[in-house]
Amino acid sequence: MSFDRLIAKIIETGNPTVAGLDPKLDYVPEFIRKKAFEEKGADLKGTAHAIWKFNQAIIDEICDLVPAVKPQSAYYEMYGWYGVKALYKTIEYAKSKGMFVIVDGKRNDIGATMEAYTNAYLGNVEINGNTFEGFGADALTVNGYLGTDGISPLTDACKKNDKGIFVLVKTSNKSSGELQDKLLADGGTIYNTMGDMCEKWGSDSIGKYGYSTVGAVVGATYPEQLAEMRAKLPHTFFLVPGYGAQGGGAEGVAKAFDSNGLGAIVNSSRAIMCAYQKEGCDEKDFAKAARREVIRMKEDITAYLPALKK
Amino acid sequence: MSFDRLIAKIIETGNPTVAGLDPKLDYVPEFIRKKAFEEKGADLKGTAHAIWKFNQAIIDEICDLVPAVKPQSAYYEMYGWYGVKALYKTIEYAKSKGMFVIVDGKRNDIGATMEAYTNAYLGNVEINGNTFEGFGADALTVNGYLGTDGISPLTDACKKNDKGIFVLVKTSNKSSGELQDKLLADGGTIYNTMGDMCEKWGSDSIGKYGYSTVGAVVGATYPEQLAEMRAKLPHTFFLVPGYGAQGGGAEGVAKAFDSNGLGAIVNSSRAIMCAYQKEGCDEKDFAKAARREVIRMKEDITAYLPALKK
Repeated sequence: MSFDRLIAKIIETGNPTVAGLDPKLDYVPEFIRKKAFEEKGADLKGTAHAIWKFNQAIIDEICDLVPAVKPQSAYYEMYGWYGVKALYKTIEYAKSKGMFVIVDGKRNDIGATMEAYTNAYLGNVEINGNTFEGFGADALTVNGYLGTDGISPLTDACKKNDKGIFVLVKTSNKSSGELQDKLLADGGTIYNTMGDMCEKWGSDSIGKYGYSTVGAVVGATYPEQLAEMRAKLPHTFFLVPGYGAQGGGAEGVAKAFDSNGLGAIVNSSRAIMCAYQKEGCDEKDFAKAARREVIRMKEDITAYLPALKK
Repeated sequence: MSFDRLIAKIIETGNPTVAGLDPKLDYVPEFIRKKAFEEKGADLKGTAHAIWKFNQAIIDEICDLVPAVKPQSAYYEMYGWYGVKALYKTIEYAKSKGMFVIVDGKRNDIGATMEAYTNAYLGNVEINGNTFEGFGADALTVNGYLGTDGISPLTDACKKNDKGIFVLVKTSNKSSGELQDKLLADGGTIYNTMGDMCEKWGSDSIGKYGYSTVGAVVGATYPEQLAEMRAKLPHTFFLVPGYGAQGGGAEGVAKAFDSNGLGAIVNSSRAIMCAYQKEGCDEKDFAKAARREVIRMKEDITAYLPALKK
């Protein structure tokens, strides 16, 4: 129940960051692409194989340092069902290496359909008396625009299966304010209201670190809102995208954390996956370059945080 | 460009409805399940095969009567990547039968990631100099919570590839009002603001029937809001869920249409897929029962509309 499992991993590694796995084909080193195309074809199947091998090598190299990975489903769906198979294999492999897996799918729908998404990512389906997991993630990002009945199938499953969700509250993109920052007649903003809903949805699932099963996505690119939300939502664990490539700095993201150095996990995707391109090292060294970037990021962020108690 | 292709199909069939394909395993007749399990296994693979055969038979039986199908991605993802493969095959088959395919995925993300979703559903990817379609849908439902930069990759692709999107405005579920009906400091409601954004996002892509490439989802369960939105959003084509099983009636959904009997398409899923259960006919007759329900629905809805000009 709650995000206790994730928080325990963060404490164990001393590292409140998550590696985003958003593998565009351009990010994959030439030698992996070439081999995959030769083996499987220069098509969707071969590409899916290439991104799976790329992910696998990165996971192998960072799994002792980073508590979690966050595959972004769009980058797999882009390569059709072959890509979605690569997503499944990536989730399975990261879990086998002891990592916590957050699928970034931003799913949303009415209750009956949300039950299907819940079964897909945080639960299972029954077939002829046996149960099967579609994707078997540990957590899922979701969009709360549809209100409580689009969320309750998820929170039920989170409590039952020891999983978590992150609801979009204040996103990291430039135009996030167009809707999210709008002032309501009753005072607050839309993102504020969504934040309050997260506290409410999580109120009966608060774990031993004080955080519930319902987290929130709050972008690193808006440090003021991070501070505001941290103060306002004491039981809501934050997933913080937008660090690095999108412009969020370590000093800003520190505002997402509580006085124990907990309460948030910061994502970086491209900077880790493409570290070898930025370093200009041999592309065969891509996974080691990812590891170096993971260490750099951990040091950069934890420098601004109180020390985590082991 | 715009929803001209869909509207032309609606005029051709005289039928402003869409068949939702949300195939839970319980909906699939026993004889199809049994055969699929024998051939492929009583697991995710066998289930995915069963729902594909089920969809195929329904498409065969209704494709001359209904302009479009709307597979709901959750019901495929629930069966893992095998299910997603069945989604792909369903889309491909429906298109081969001349149907317009709306993938109901309610996708949403920041710009760069939305580009990946756009490529997945409404565009293509380039691999080694060749292009491949991930899913090749005609339209996609999306959630506009992230604002303009999460929508513009879609509208660019819609204009380039002659596709459409439907943005969630006022959803059909009970708790849709929790957020969507909230009053803003500047007057309107949140769903109102989202509706205005649809008109804006579509303003440079208005087709020959007066509708743009950016549609809106407005639930049949809220006829007053349907009427309000129809009057307020003259260039926004509506996808109307919630008819039938969820409680929306034909007289109410008529408010989604303009004075030419155009401007909307009404979805029904369970009532079509499970028509054989409701009728109590032989389960082998499921596809014909779906056809009878499609005809009943068409007559029920068009009775309240002005005649469509051929």
